[in-house]
Amino acid sequence: MVNYPNMKKKWQSSYLPNNENKHYTAHRGMSLEEDISLSNEYYLTHDIAVIYKKPTPVQIVKVDYPKREAAKIVEAYYKTPSTTDYNGLYRGKYVDFEAKETKIKNFPFANISKHQIDHLQKIIDHGGIAFVIIAFTSINEVYLIDASYIINDYYHSQRKSMTYEKIKSLGRLIPQGFQPRLHYLKVVDDLYFKEDE
Amino acid sequence: MVNYPNMKKKWQSSYLPNNENKHYTAHRGMSLEEDISLSNEYYLTHDIAVIYKKPTPVQIVKVDYPKREAAKIVEAYYKTPSTTDYNGLYRGKYVDFEAKETKIKNFPFANISKHQIDHLQKIIDHGGIAFVIIAFTSINEVYLIDASYIINDYYHSQRKSMTYEKIKSLGRLIPQGFQPRLHYLKVVDDLYFKEDE
Repeated sequence: MVNYPNMKKKWQSSYLPNNENKHYTAHRGMSLEEDISLSNEYYLTHDIAVIYKKPTPVQIVKVDYPKREAAKIVEAYYKTPSTTDYNGLYRGKYVDFEAKETKIKNFPFANISKHQIDHLQKIIDHGGIAFVIIAFTSINEVYLIDASYIINDYYHSQRKSMTYEKIKSLGRLIPQGFQPRLHYLKVVDDLYFKEDE
Repeated sequence: MVNYPNMKKKWQSSYLPNNENKHYTAHRGMSLEEDISLSNEYYLTHDIAVIYKKPTPVQIVKVDYPKREAAKIVEAYYKTPSTTDYNGLYRGKYVDFEAKETKIKNFPFANISKHQIDHLQKIIDHGGIAFVIIAFTSINEVYLIDASYIINDYYHSQRKSMTYEKIKSLGRLIPQGFQPRLHYLKVVDDLYFKEDE
């Protein structure tokens, strides 16, 4: 592959080195999804919680069965998820959430589907814990916000997004560290289990 | 396609008409999975519970992006599930289960993976409701049995299966009907919520 000097320069200027700490994933090359997966593995192996990401829904159209080999899917399409990406069990409670990254300093509602909004409302109605994790990648801050605020603004706000300031005031900053990478259950403790302690 | 008289006769003799009611799926052509999906849809639309089947986990290797068309997955493989197929929220509680069909009159432990057994144990440990739904297709009976019995025999029984008689005595028969098709939450009420009423 030809190494185009211009493209390299462009890539460098936008990601390195002046603002290397501004990007959430810049120094680690990891996504929010990977960080949450690492945290969930930590919670699972330390017997803290049982929370998984659901597999990506795929419509399988055609499968080949080669001799002596594993079945090979040769035609399939991504399906729109009807629920959120994550759910599980923590301290005897059902927990359900969606996680989104945004490069800009607000959270556009176009990032979340009506299906997911309505699913989160159902979780609240049936006595579960429902929230959204939002990573602002340009400033390396990740917030947990109760789903009710997102649902309310999704349906009633004049804006098509929720501002960073509003998320900061209604949500909680998730502590970042080594293990767990994103300690979002610390925030869940504070928001949903405070009266128990 | 050529219509082979012999094959037709063979098919008829094994499924129709003498024992047409003996096969769980014979008169409807539906699987246990489809019946549970129908029941979950009923529970969801009637605001009774929020329970979904997780998507089949697939390892996506290669995706084509044809112009003006949806992304097409052209190489992918089935992955072994690390958890159960179903989970959700009912009456404020986390519910988790696996569903299996068996043609013979016992439930072979080869039908369930060690990963799934260990997952069910974790759900119990963290205060969730965990069970297994077992359909005996040859007699059209479907049972719900608390996961603790399956886990115990999986690890401690001399047998490599649990007998029909044992499942019948430790589990509960799930009522079958029109809507919901398989009313397994009725059994969940009886087994896990009895003291609340």
